[in-house]
Amino acid sequence: TELPRPYPNEIPHNEKLLSLKYESLDYDNSENQLFLEEERRINHAAFRTVEIKRWVICAMIGILTGLVACFIDIVVENLAGLKYRVVKDNIDKFTEKGGLSFSLLLWATLNASVVMVGSVIVAFIEPVAAGSGIPQIKCYLNGVKIPHVVRLKTLVIKVCGVILSVVGGLAVGKEGPMIHSGAVIAAGISQGRSTSLKRDFKIFEYFRRDTEKRDFVSAGAAAGVSAAFGAPVGGVLFSLEEGASFWNQFLTWRIFFASMISTFTLNSVLSVYHGNAWDLSSPGLINFGRFDNEKMGYTIQEIPIFIFMGVVGGILGALFNALNYWLTMFRIRYIHRPCLQVIEAMLVAAVTAAVGFVMIYCSRDCQPIQGSTVAYPLQLFCADGEYNSMATAFFNTPEKSVVNLFHDPPGLPWGRVCARWLICSLLACGTRQGADSPGRHDGILPSPGLCCLRPAGCGIVRMTLSLTVIMMEATGNVTYGFPIMLVLMTAKIVGDYFVEGLYDMHIQLQSVPFLHWEAPVTSHSLTAREVMSTPVTCLRRIERVGTVVDILSDTSSNHNGFPVVESNPDTTQVAGLRGLILRSQLIVLLKHKVFVERANLSLVQRRLKLKDFRDAYPRFPPIQSIHVSQDERECMIDLSEFMNPSPYTVPQEASLPRVFKLFRALGLRHLVVVDNRNEVVGMVTRKDLARYRLGKEGLEELSLAQT
Amino acid sequence: TELPRPYPNEIPHNEKLLSLKYESLDYDNSENQLFLEEERRINHAAFRTVEIKRWVICAMIGILTGLVACFIDIVVENLAGLKYRVVKDNIDKFTEKGGLSFSLLLWATLNASVVMVGSVIVAFIEPVAAGSGIPQIKCYLNGVKIPHVVRLKTLVIKVCGVILSVVGGLAVGKEGPMIHSGAVIAAGISQGRSTSLKRDFKIFEYFRRDTEKRDFVSAGAAAGVSAAFGAPVGGVLFSLEEGASFWNQFLTWRIFFASMISTFTLNSVLSVYHGNAWDLSSPGLINFGRFDNEKMGYTIQEIPIFIFMGVVGGILGALFNALNYWLTMFRIRYIHRPCLQVIEAMLVAAVTAAVGFVMIYCSRDCQPIQGSTVAYPLQLFCADGEYNSMATAFFNTPEKSVVNLFHDPPGLPWGRVCARWLICSLLACGTRQGADSPGRHDGILPSPGLCCLRPAGCGIVRMTLSLTVIMMEATGNVTYGFPIMLVLMTAKIVGDYFVEGLYDMHIQLQSVPFLHWEAPVTSHSLTAREVMSTPVTCLRRIERVGTVVDILSDTSSNHNGFPVVESNPDTTQVAGLRGLILRSQLIVLLKHKVFVERANLSLVQRRLKLKDFRDAYPRFPPIQSIHVSQDERECMIDLSEFMNPSPYTVPQEASLPRVFKLFRALGLRHLVVVDNRNEVVGMVTRKDLARYRLGKEGLEELSLAQT
Repeated sequence: TELPRPYPNEIPHNEKLLSLKYESLDYDNSENQLFLEEERRINHAAFRTVEIKRWVICAMIGILTGLVACFIDIVVENLAGLKYRVVKDNIDKFTEKGGLSFSLLLWATLNASVVMVGSVIVAFIEPVAAGSGIPQIKCYLNGVKIPHVVRLKTLVIKVCGVILSVVGGLAVGKEGPMIHSGAVIAAGISQGRSTSLKRDFKIFEYFRRDTEKRDFVSAGAAAGVSAAFGAPVGGVLFSLEEGASFWNQFLTWRIFFASMISTFTLNSVLSVYHGNAWDLSSPGLINFGRFDNEKMGYTIQEIPIFIFMGVVGGILGALFNALNYWLTMFRIRYIHRPCLQVIEAMLVAAVTAAVGFVMIYCSRDCQPIQGSTVAYPLQLFCADGEYNSMATAFFNTPEKSVVNLFHDPPGLPWGRVCARWLICSLLACGTRQGADSPGRHDGILPSPGLCCLRPAGCGIVRMTLSLTVIMMEATGNVTYGFPIMLVLMTAKIVGDYFVEGLYDMHIQLQSVPFLHWEAPVTSHSLTAREVMSTPVTCLRRIERVGTVVDILSDTSSNHNGFPVVESNPDTTQVAGLRGLILRSQLIVLLKHKVFVERANLSLVQRRLKLKDFRDAYPRFPPIQSIHVSQDERECMIDLSEFMNPSPYTVPQEASLPRVFKLFRALGLRHLVVVDNRNEVVGMVTRKDLARYRLGKEGLEELSLAQT
Repeated sequence: TELPRPYPNEIPHNEKLLSLKYESLDYDNSENQLFLEEERRINHAAFRTVEIKRWVICAMIGILTGLVACFIDIVVENLAGLKYRVVKDNIDKFTEKGGLSFSLLLWATLNASVVMVGSVIVAFIEPVAAGSGIPQIKCYLNGVKIPHVVRLKTLVIKVCGVILSVVGGLAVGKEGPMIHSGAVIAAGISQGRSTSLKRDFKIFEYFRRDTEKRDFVSAGAAAGVSAAFGAPVGGVLFSLEEGASFWNQFLTWRIFFASMISTFTLNSVLSVYHGNAWDLSSPGLINFGRFDNEKMGYTIQEIPIFIFMGVVGGILGALFNALNYWLTMFRIRYIHRPCLQVIEAMLVAAVTAAVGFVMIYCSRDCQPIQGSTVAYPLQLFCADGEYNSMATAFFNTPEKSVVNLFHDPPGLPWGRVCARWLICSLLACGTRQGADSPGRHDGILPSPGLCCLRPAGCGIVRMTLSLTVIMMEATGNVTYGFPIMLVLMTAKIVGDYFVEGLYDMHIQLQSVPFLHWEAPVTSHSLTAREVMSTPVTCLRRIERVGTVVDILSDTSSNHNGFPVVESNPDTTQVAGLRGLILRSQLIVLLKHKVFVERANLSLVQRRLKLKDFRDAYPRFPPIQSIHVSQDERECMIDLSEFMNPSPYTVPQEASLPRVFKLFRALGLRHLVVVDNRNEVVGMVTRKDLARYRLGKEGLEELSLAQT
């Protein structure tokens, strides 16, 4: 049952992507001796303090995420208003004189230049801020860190980028960026310092490890969803569905708390900004307006319609994903230089404007202005006292046009709605930030029943449970709960039949070693022996400094975890596994020169505190930056005081699903494979497990980027 | 850091409870060689079939749970109507003649006799059907099976019991019993057979193991919540919050599907029964009526009120729990004979009727009958054209009176509502099925803002996230989402300060080895060496049949899992761990006499199929029922073909939280502790981990019942 390696991979990978380096995270507690000692000292009262700090951090995450959402909303509104006035004045001028093509030109130029600024800062300053950010956060929660993904700089660029994209008329939404923003805020606050600002506030030092940081990032992502949709429960479910492998009740409550605070902050600030201070009527950025309960009944006869809609939505979603896939492939291959990316974005903005103008011109979709609540009515080709509803849709900020879409007069023909949606989708597909556009189309249509919008969104992203709750919360109504679920599930099943979800697709395209929920079903024939990496570089309990330095400097292996074995293995005694030590820990040991001189083993070596490790987290210096003299190379280093004394192990005979389950459930980074005598025979890392997937002809192996 | 054992336990345990035997479940895949072989044979197509079967089973669970809910609802409605008419006729007769005490007597007698029938069948036929069933299902999902808890007989008795209790006027709800019923249905269907009916349909044999059964029971519990409250998403969250330690997306969708089907079935059948066949307006048994969106705004000034309500609710809930605790203690000590239990139930029923009558007499709470929608108006002490609302509250089925409570005229004074609730709670406390009554008071009060009802419910049971969603779904409204959350969280925090949740309390009173989310925070100083059971009875790979029989027959140890070590340990070679075999597997091996004759080791032993193990699951015969002759005792048995070849192990140095996490995350039943040379030094089971808890003075040890 040996697999041919490397299995011919059907995805033509770009060399550049495969050479990207991702960092694996360690969501196990990395229980080393120092940490254990600290935990043992912690009594009940100290634990309480830590617990209170956790709640305070979650409150701060919620508040800041809410404020960022407010900032985006207010700035977009003002800039969009400005753009509207400039274009309207121009149109008014030229409507009399004739020559509306000048208006089109102005509109397109405005959009393109705004988008240019946005894409320049993204492409040249922080490329990781491009896109929705949802795949990146999914990866982070799964245990793969894409470089720079939770930095303050990324947050700033992301916020500016999304504002400029929305103002520039691109078919993008704010929910992806909000999730990413929440995650960055959480990662920053929970560590009590910022590397971008070079400030260390010396607080929250207890939380400087991967597990704790991941928990807060979950809370941040939930707060982001909550702010975007006004859906705190949906936010929690999103975080749990995407991230946390292990449902912990205490964690869930904190995530829930952060979500609540986030939507409440947004609500309060926006209420004050809009002048009705005590009203709390803006729970989220994306609000589908309030629906009247009475009109929203549904009967049993409609159920086939819902199912049909689910099927259509699933197919449309699959089409969207396929289109998106090919475009992404094209981009990976040809548009990888920043200036090309900027030109592409500008082109898309100009095309969007042009398509919009053509549609406005062709549709002549006039509505009476009297009694209408639209924000930016444009008379454009309409009689006096009427406005062009298509123009409004293109001029408004995305969420406003969605509300208009839903609250249009009941006579609205379905065909037109679907046509609009299709064009929107195509534009979204062509947009650089295409990955976050599906959120934009998440909506149900109350007036003529449910339309194809919602299910297609599900067909695209495939998150059933959290999406259902988000929809329920965003529409402020649960009456449609059952139909929504029915449609979403059908869409998901149908969509899954064709292609996988958008985010999963993007993750796979990026060659990230992402661990799914379960090992491929046909992988029982593989055992740890076959999937592990071997041979493994082991260290002795008391090791020569020179050896350690040489091993760490060996760029060809570049391992991150080293099993520690008994010091003096003679042939009669078994050199069993004693512990596991990480590259980062060794670096700190070398940096602080925690050596025992060879001549004098009884000499007490310099005491290292857990704080020394925490201060270095998460950016440990490279081995090259640490100078070790020739004399020091001859010293010894005692690893047993710093290693993890009880690493998880599996026997060689364990099957892949079993290894996978252990790895996934505990969030491991390294898993040592031992034989019957507890001797190290191999090491399983994330990459060894993530490379298998179920293809059309059975088990396949993927090429993965380096971690 | 050695703990004094046994630590003086503050709960005065009843010997009877401690002597109860619970069964531990194994939610790890129990990967033995036969199972592995089968899994290896499974290709993609076969896996698809299994997957489709899972969905079909979930659909069946949903349908049957929905039908049981309908049955309960319809029977209760008819019996309650009958009771109402009898009492009303009597009252009408005596109102003219005077002598209403006869009516009281009739009422009390009716209630007491109905309750008597109910309590007799529960106490004498199936005592495990008493109570709400929620603690039992929590235990099952956690990994402890209380005997008979998922049997068909239990279901029948439970359904009859809840019908008779509700008709008898006891302050009990249907949601606990619905959850239990869903779980029983799921356990039955997924196994494709019923022991109570002695029928084996020879289907779904693949699912005859603890992991798969647990997954279906989760779905059943969710379907139960869904049918009770019309809250499918809330049902899923309940199952996840209470049960599944590991969030698996595929499982979540199936649970969701079962929930949807369940509420849909109930909805359809009840709609047809009520004559409006296509309406689908009865999503759940407990329906708080439809609220008008417009009236339900809330402002920022109300937030302190919500928090205050949460505090009050938390305190009330804590009081309820404390009262319930003392009553339960009293019952455990003194009322453990079935006939005493029956008498107690009748007494409670009579007292409830008497209290009700007194309250009706004292309150004289008359409402105009005109324009009112109450089902059973009683004129009782009121003027003509008016009805006594207090009498209605006591005569109605619980959920109807809750609806009345909420939809009473807006002028309803808060004080009266709270007084009613308090009396209700006290009665619930005194009720045998007290544990499920909190659900009854789960409601929000729309007219004069939120009242103390909801938060107190939370203060009692403490399930924040799922309860919030259940409330949102049951009220058909998400506008109050934020206040509900705020109130619930405050109530939970306040309540936790005083006592633990009701279900947790009951579980602890039952001395069940329940594993909470995390190990006690101060337990880092304990290691596997200190918590494990030692010495462990090991078996050799090729073992003498007589030895196996003797070990299994040894009632003093009564172990369930046995490490398998190398056959011929001589002093030079290490007798390392080779695998793990379960008592149940050994029993099957002995039953089928899979022996190798001593003289001829090369003889092929009888092939045993996985089917043989599955047929015996879950009620493996006791060792006493298996006859092994003296000759057979001298035969050998080769365990390596049936054992789990790669059991999870931990080194002795692993800390308790680490062991706990591994155990909980993977749903283990046995965890072997090994030393550096992979030799078995001990075994950790559920009981070893569950007995530690954080008390007022640090770590405490509980006395636990046997498993």
